[in-house]
Amino acid sequence: MTKNRKTTVIALGGPSDSTDQQPLYEQVAGSIVALIDSGALRPGERIPSVRRIHQQQKVSISTAVQAYRVLESRGLIEARPQSGYYVRIKPWVVPPEPVMVRPASKPTQVRVSELVMEVIQSVRDPGMVRLGATLPSPELFPTLELNRIMGAAGRRSPHLANSYVPPPGHHPLRVQIAKRALEYGCVVSPDDIVVTCGATEALNLCLRAVANPGDTIAIQSPTYFGFLQIIEALGMRACEIPTFPRDGVCLDELKARLDRCSIKACLFATNFSNPLGCHMPDTKKKALAELLAERDVPLIEDDLSGSLGFGPHRPKTVKAFDRHGLVMLVDSFTKTLAPGLRVGWVIPGRFQKRVEHLKFTASSATATLPQMAIADYLANTCYDHHLRKIRRFYAGQAVNVTETISRTFPPGTRVSRPQGGQVLWVELPEGFDSVELYRRALTHKISIAPGAIFSPTQKYANCIRMNLGNPWNDTVRNAIETVGNLAKELIIG
Amino acid sequence: MTKNRKTTVIALGGPSDSTDQQPLYEQVAGSIVALIDSGALRPGERIPSVRRIHQQQKVSISTAVQAYRVLESRGLIEARPQSGYYVRIKPWVVPPEPVMVRPASKPTQVRVSELVMEVIQSVRDPGMVRLGATLPSPELFPTLELNRIMGAAGRRSPHLANSYVPPPGHHPLRVQIAKRALEYGCVVSPDDIVVTCGATEALNLCLRAVANPGDTIAIQSPTYFGFLQIIEALGMRACEIPTFPRDGVCLDELKARLDRCSIKACLFATNFSNPLGCHMPDTKKKALAELLAERDVPLIEDDLSGSLGFGPHRPKTVKAFDRHGLVMLVDSFTKTLAPGLRVGWVIPGRFQKRVEHLKFTASSATATLPQMAIADYLANTCYDHHLRKIRRFYAGQAVNVTETISRTFPPGTRVSRPQGGQVLWVELPEGFDSVELYRRALTHKISIAPGAIFSPTQKYANCIRMNLGNPWNDTVRNAIETVGNLAKELIIG
Repeated sequence: MTKNRKTTVIALGGPSDSTDQQPLYEQVAGSIVALIDSGALRPGERIPSVRRIHQQQKVSISTAVQAYRVLESRGLIEARPQSGYYVRIKPWVVPPEPVMVRPASKPTQVRVSELVMEVIQSVRDPGMVRLGATLPSPELFPTLELNRIMGAAGRRSPHLANSYVPPPGHHPLRVQIAKRALEYGCVVSPDDIVVTCGATEALNLCLRAVANPGDTIAIQSPTYFGFLQIIEALGMRACEIPTFPRDGVCLDELKARLDRCSIKACLFATNFSNPLGCHMPDTKKKALAELLAERDVPLIEDDLSGSLGFGPHRPKTVKAFDRHGLVMLVDSFTKTLAPGLRVGWVIPGRFQKRVEHLKFTASSATATLPQMAIADYLANTCYDHHLRKIRRFYAGQAVNVTETISRTFPPGTRVSRPQGGQVLWVELPEGFDSVELYRRALTHKISIAPGAIFSPTQKYANCIRMNLGNPWNDTVRNAIETVGNLAKELIIG
Repeated sequence: MTKNRKTTVIALGGPSDSTDQQPLYEQVAGSIVALIDSGALRPGERIPSVRRIHQQQKVSISTAVQAYRVLESRGLIEARPQSGYYVRIKPWVVPPEPVMVRPASKPTQVRVSELVMEVIQSVRDPGMVRLGATLPSPELFPTLELNRIMGAAGRRSPHLANSYVPPPGHHPLRVQIAKRALEYGCVVSPDDIVVTCGATEALNLCLRAVANPGDTIAIQSPTYFGFLQIIEALGMRACEIPTFPRDGVCLDELKARLDRCSIKACLFATNFSNPLGCHMPDTKKKALAELLAERDVPLIEDDLSGSLGFGPHRPKTVKAFDRHGLVMLVDSFTKTLAPGLRVGWVIPGRFQKRVEHLKFTASSATATLPQMAIADYLANTCYDHHLRKIRRFYAGQAVNVTETISRTFPPGTRVSRPQGGQVLWVELPEGFDSVELYRRALTHKISIAPGAIFSPTQKYANCIRMNLGNPWNDTVRNAIETVGNLAKELIIG
């Protein structure tokens, strides 16, 4: 094994070379690829440890980790538990990425509910392997600690715990949210925040604050089906904006539609969107904020996956570049900490009063004890440590699921390459019927999310969304393989 | 004191004489009034104990208690702690009741939000004596026990506690709600129930399930301002139906408006309504159910105070007489058990699927642990014992507050005589400006609810609503006296 211990020196420009175009971790990754290509690192050989890269290259540990994740996700290296990273003996071919789709440019009525509700119902069966839903495994969360903190909060302030706290919500929780908002570039006071019953309620309030039934909302294409359901239930219309799988909404297309259609608001997920996983770079976020300010069109920015990036840095939000109070930033603790507590929030900018009032008429208040528990958790424990843990988990899952798909899905399958979040977007060959695949998978007790529910015009019939939230085990791997085989059968016919 | 121990025998027809017109407790009360009138029971004299009436008259303890409450609320007898009931030395003159008001019969746009929000904001000041808001004192609730039960539930099923439970909600809670529904005449299965984030969300879902923006909803007049806010926020219109202070909506007037206006749904509180305290007798409930069935108009029935009757029997609901699934019964634990947990529900009848779907789009799910805690509380403790305790509390408060008003408010003041619930409706002389009274009371750190917020046409400018939820003490009594004196000053000008 001494062979593997040799010192491989990696040539690399200094950290000062880092540019917006090529982040430092990509440079580190590129150097290792060069070593593999040149044969200096051979298949099966152990590559230098993260610590060694850190020391040799004067880059941070997190940059080195990120570089190795990138190489892992491209199928070039593999992690072996307790041992380190190795050059893959037989590198798997990472499937190509999906490309941008151009949906019809007209606003359209939304009618997705029936299929969506069918898919959601199918997930309830406890015997089902849930490959489609973004329900994270409860093991990911510090549930016992949260329960303990909640109990302590209830004993400390029983009267507060059993009183209702009207909008904008429990002040100590808003203090914690305001503190953390600095990380994504937002300087806000606790009074700029409204606590809600999860992000779903927040999105309803935002849409109702700025638009009426019949009005048109611009959405990414594809978009999270939950957005479509809300728009449909509120009697609004949707206008699909073509979206790059890597960096989000196409601004030129958005501009063209803002010119042509009367768009009342935009509803975009800007960091690790569901389902594409796209992530808008800062320069583009700034440009989006400026474009919408010119037209005075509000943006409802969903940042639910913003804390789930695989890279070392928490990305900013469009809200960080908002100079006019036009961005309403929506987030929640559902995907990161406590799905069962249903605590979300919104920073509604200039629509603060209207949102507060709508919150009051929609549900009076959010349950008090869950707000107290999360406030205490954020104040007294290391939330960031917990976030790092689940980010590592999702990054690992992205590799596992992509690799399994690459082995078992039909030729021509494309897979998104998200830099964060909890889903993969899988595009099967043109003409494929993913609703039929969904139905056949159900007979094998496997639930997937068919692509049609991610568009108001039922585009994406050849796509499916895959959940990264399941702990990796034989059941999950076998289920993905089964879906791959079913997909091949469907193509052969 | 032996004088007071003499055996007073009360003449009374047997229980078989009880009729819909005069309940048994009224007969018992009438017999005692006769004894007082005849001088057989003199001022200051102790009247027979509840137990003695029970034995002598072969009526239940609860009937005897109810009879004495009625006499107490009429100012004829008074309770002395640890001692029993006595004939009042100087009986106070119970103010007359308000009479039915006839608002304009046309549907109208609703614009109450500004004043309502001002009133609600004023309640937040912790130094304020809250005479107007229906915020019950936290001491009324078994908070510590609930917290303990919640902690145990979280430890027993941590994964369930931190997962979200999609609509219709946590099954064991729906089982408990279905069991209790028998008490108000409803035979339903757990699957007929949808758990919501409090009654406010349930009312939103019901309205959205059966009506669209611009549609007209029939409401009681006066009605709870929260109903008006929801109708306003949903862009619907309201049609006020004249309402008897004793037995609720005038069916003839409702019939006339159903003929003339296109009413999409009714939204009525049928038991101990807020703010009038009216209570619809069973025969009238049945007639209402039949009238609405003829016209195929849904009723959203608010039963939030149904468990807060001062009498011995839990009243039925209109839902109990619903043969067509047209009644959507809304209730919650906010007023009876746990304001801070925000758990409500709806039995939506034939609109079940639509309500479930709207719940999913509105907030995805209700927080899990609060549902588990309430389910376990209902299953394992004596909820009825707790309910009896708070009913006694409110009945006592109704007497205290009415008595204080009778002493200190201007001549011509009328006060409602509710048989349950947690509010009194106080009508000052014609032309009185209760918004001005509200503003003057604020300067004394007293918050009241001015009548104008209980009508979309700002009727009831001469009325105020009084909360019965405050523990009785000098602060509260003094505050009511202050409001009375301010009212007198306002009249003198």
